[in-house]
Amino acid sequence: MPQPRLRPYLSRIQGFAAGRDSPRAVLEECLEALEGWEPRIGAFTALGVEAARRAADGATLRWRDGRALSPIDGMPVGIKDTIETEDLPTGMGSPLYDGYQPRFDAASVQGLREAGAVILGKTVTTEFASTEPRGTRNPWDTERTPGGSSSGSAAAVAAGEVCGALGTQVVGSILRPSGFCGAYGFKPGVGGLNRGGSLDFLSQSCTGPIAASLEDCWAMAIAIAERVGGDPGYPGLGGPKAPPPARRPERLALLRTAGWTVLEPQAQAALEAALESLRRAGVEILDAATCPELAAVEDAVAPAMEIVTRINAWEWLWPLGSYMRRDPAGLSQATHRRWEMARSMTRADYAMMLDRRQAARETFACLAARCDAVVSLTAPGAAPVGLGSTGNPVFVAPGSMLGVPALALPCLTAGGLPLGLQLLGFRDADATLFGHAAWVDRALSAA
Amino acid sequence: MPQPRLRPYLSRIQGFAAGRDSPRAVLEECLEALEGWEPRIGAFTALGVEAARRAADGATLRWRDGRALSPIDGMPVGIKDTIETEDLPTGMGSPLYDGYQPRFDAASVQGLREAGAVILGKTVTTEFASTEPRGTRNPWDTERTPGGSSSGSAAAVAAGEVCGALGTQVVGSILRPSGFCGAYGFKPGVGGLNRGGSLDFLSQSCTGPIAASLEDCWAMAIAIAERVGGDPGYPGLGGPKAPPPARRPERLALLRTAGWTVLEPQAQAALEAALESLRRAGVEILDAATCPELAAVEDAVAPAMEIVTRINAWEWLWPLGSYMRRDPAGLSQATHRRWEMARSMTRADYAMMLDRRQAARETFACLAARCDAVVSLTAPGAAPVGLGSTGNPVFVAPGSMLGVPALALPCLTAGGLPLGLQLLGFRDADATLFGHAAWVDRALSAA
Repeated sequence: MPQPRLRPYLSRIQGFAAGRDSPRAVLEECLEALEGWEPRIGAFTALGVEAARRAADGATLRWRDGRALSPIDGMPVGIKDTIETEDLPTGMGSPLYDGYQPRFDAASVQGLREAGAVILGKTVTTEFASTEPRGTRNPWDTERTPGGSSSGSAAAVAAGEVCGALGTQVVGSILRPSGFCGAYGFKPGVGGLNRGGSLDFLSQSCTGPIAASLEDCWAMAIAIAERVGGDPGYPGLGGPKAPPPARRPERLALLRTAGWTVLEPQAQAALEAALESLRRAGVEILDAATCPELAAVEDAVAPAMEIVTRINAWEWLWPLGSYMRRDPAGLSQATHRRWEMARSMTRADYAMMLDRRQAARETFACLAARCDAVVSLTAPGAAPVGLGSTGNPVFVAPGSMLGVPALALPCLTAGGLPLGLQLLGFRDADATLFGHAAWVDRALSAA
Repeated sequence: MPQPRLRPYLSRIQGFAAGRDSPRAVLEECLEALEGWEPRIGAFTALGVEAARRAADGATLRWRDGRALSPIDGMPVGIKDTIETEDLPTGMGSPLYDGYQPRFDAASVQGLREAGAVILGKTVTTEFASTEPRGTRNPWDTERTPGGSSSGSAAAVAAGEVCGALGTQVVGSILRPSGFCGAYGFKPGVGGLNRGGSLDFLSQSCTGPIAASLEDCWAMAIAIAERVGGDPGYPGLGGPKAPPPARRPERLALLRTAGWTVLEPQAQAALEAALESLRRAGVEILDAATCPELAAVEDAVAPAMEIVTRINAWEWLWPLGSYMRRDPAGLSQATHRRWEMARSMTRADYAMMLDRRQAARETFACLAARCDAVVSLTAPGAAPVGLGSTGNPVFVAPGSMLGVPALALPCLTAGGLPLGLQLLGFRDADATLFGHAAWVDRALSAA
């Protein structure tokens, strides 16, 4: 097989009106990639090829007639298999959902469908979007994990089987697999995209796109937000319909998280080289030694893994209790352990964890006065060898806990494998983060 | 038929250990009531009589062996048909869900089942817990509506077919039917009880009990909160396992909502008599003329119907878009109108409504310094004649918008029919509200 190749969509659409190019042509390229890659990486649980071809043909006509539904009209996408689809089964990564066919689309799928996106299939998720892997392989090296829990979405995008895919993140499930597979990933600020109809009910969880370019990520996300809004009670992702233009940040803060102690040497070298490139391009890089607001954030997020693990466990009391009663043998050992943790907690324990999370969010908000965005990696190194674990989430847990918008940029490498740069923004400023990220991505790709 | 008769449960349990009484005996009384009443009122969509008998027998043994799972172990309950149940179909009050059998229990059902409650059946809901009625009749007068949307839950409790039932409220769907049917109803503060697995995803919606006594309401609610918590991100309902003891309020604030202009004379007379009784018992009644904080609340909640209608419409963008695409003819005209309203709104419209709601909540919080609770009615009068409408929600919309705990007490009458007194409490003080309500209920029942 050739190297994995991202397949951006928005860069194609200018050829659609004149008929030089078409959504159907893009889809056929995806299907060709699928034929070659899918047996090696196993990114999909279900495919709807003929329905996708019909949808792509519809989009092809709309673009030629000047009545495209949105910039992503005709874009071939995959849907993480924890997100319900009216025309494809939804397995939640668990035998407890074998053969489950929802009657209706989840909110994010409704939004994509109304925007004209072509839903090619369902992508592999770990069990209940948690830790237990389900066999997908990394297209850069099939002996390595693609990361999780949005394993199939990241692998399928990286291999060019689709232009974009939906993921969900409660700890690290969008950014980490994006980084491991060399794709762009966007975790919106909490509440940004409507999660209705997904097995994605945790208080800090978010639905977001993994795609072949920053522009594609933005276009997918804003198309959803415009059509189905954010989570109930949140205004939802806001910003321009067109991807925010690149804008140089004046200051970035380098966040050394708890994961720094396990940072691998090649990854550290790649990050330092990237920071040096940014400095040369005129960006000031703050660190905790000189920025007390950043030092306070590093303290606040140091226990992020403990806090989010306990918050998530409590919030799984339901439906885990129903699952345990119906089919305990169908649940992984990791899920049994989560149930035990949940049962050992009290309402007061949970309330205290919520308070600590909220305090960390307020500490982080103070950093907005000092920098344009925060920079880190999506993992301590490239994707590890082996399919038994989806890798260490310690670098991405802080952004999830903080509830802020976060991006994975595939602009670094370590040992010839993708290494994701992580950028964190501030609440309700997702579009601003995209602008800075576009500039950083371009600066580092040129470096 | 005899008059409807509430069937409290907690007042029975002291006879269970010695075998003088039993959960199975309570269930058989419910089944007898069901046989007489159900053909006249149509409160249930599905029944599981044999499973209920088995569950009641299990509870009977546990009480005799001194190992009852909770105070509500063995309590016969109904579940509103928007709340998923693993063993009974869930129809959402819509032909779009005909024959839908969920695989797992909703969170509230899981909590009740783990506490030993006996799930007798699913109770009629209006279409999607909104306005379109589904034929249930009021047991006090079968020509009258039982109210909605938790129509079957209130009617079944009032007729003694069950001791308690789950409802949900986004505008007035627990308190109004409780008031119309002469039952106790509890809408917890927002986030109080986990709504997972219900078609109940709106930002101000709550799951709560309708029951035959205040004590039964509390016991059901706290049993759920202890086992599955509140909504993700909320600490959830807190308080003692035993129902809070009666406690005289020093000051109650009389809230004249927008609905005051349609208050019926008999209802007004009943309310005034009740307030006079409370005054004689030493409770000060504040009104807006003498309490500026209350006047500010009356101003803030005057547009409650507009604010909640528009918030709800936007939050229905999903799944209404999916429903409309699949089966528009299966949806009521009211639902079509909601879809049109949702499509006419922008993110900015929605954000503005959220801001107004939040401002009203902050205004209401200031009132806590001036009174122990707020008093009103659950409707402008007794249940109206006719089954084409579930009645006017204007008296209960404010409490829903404010997100505060609220209770319906069946201690008034108008023209020989039940008239609900409404008490509103303050955020995170649901148990305090119960204590004052127990005192008010006793004082007015003695009057």
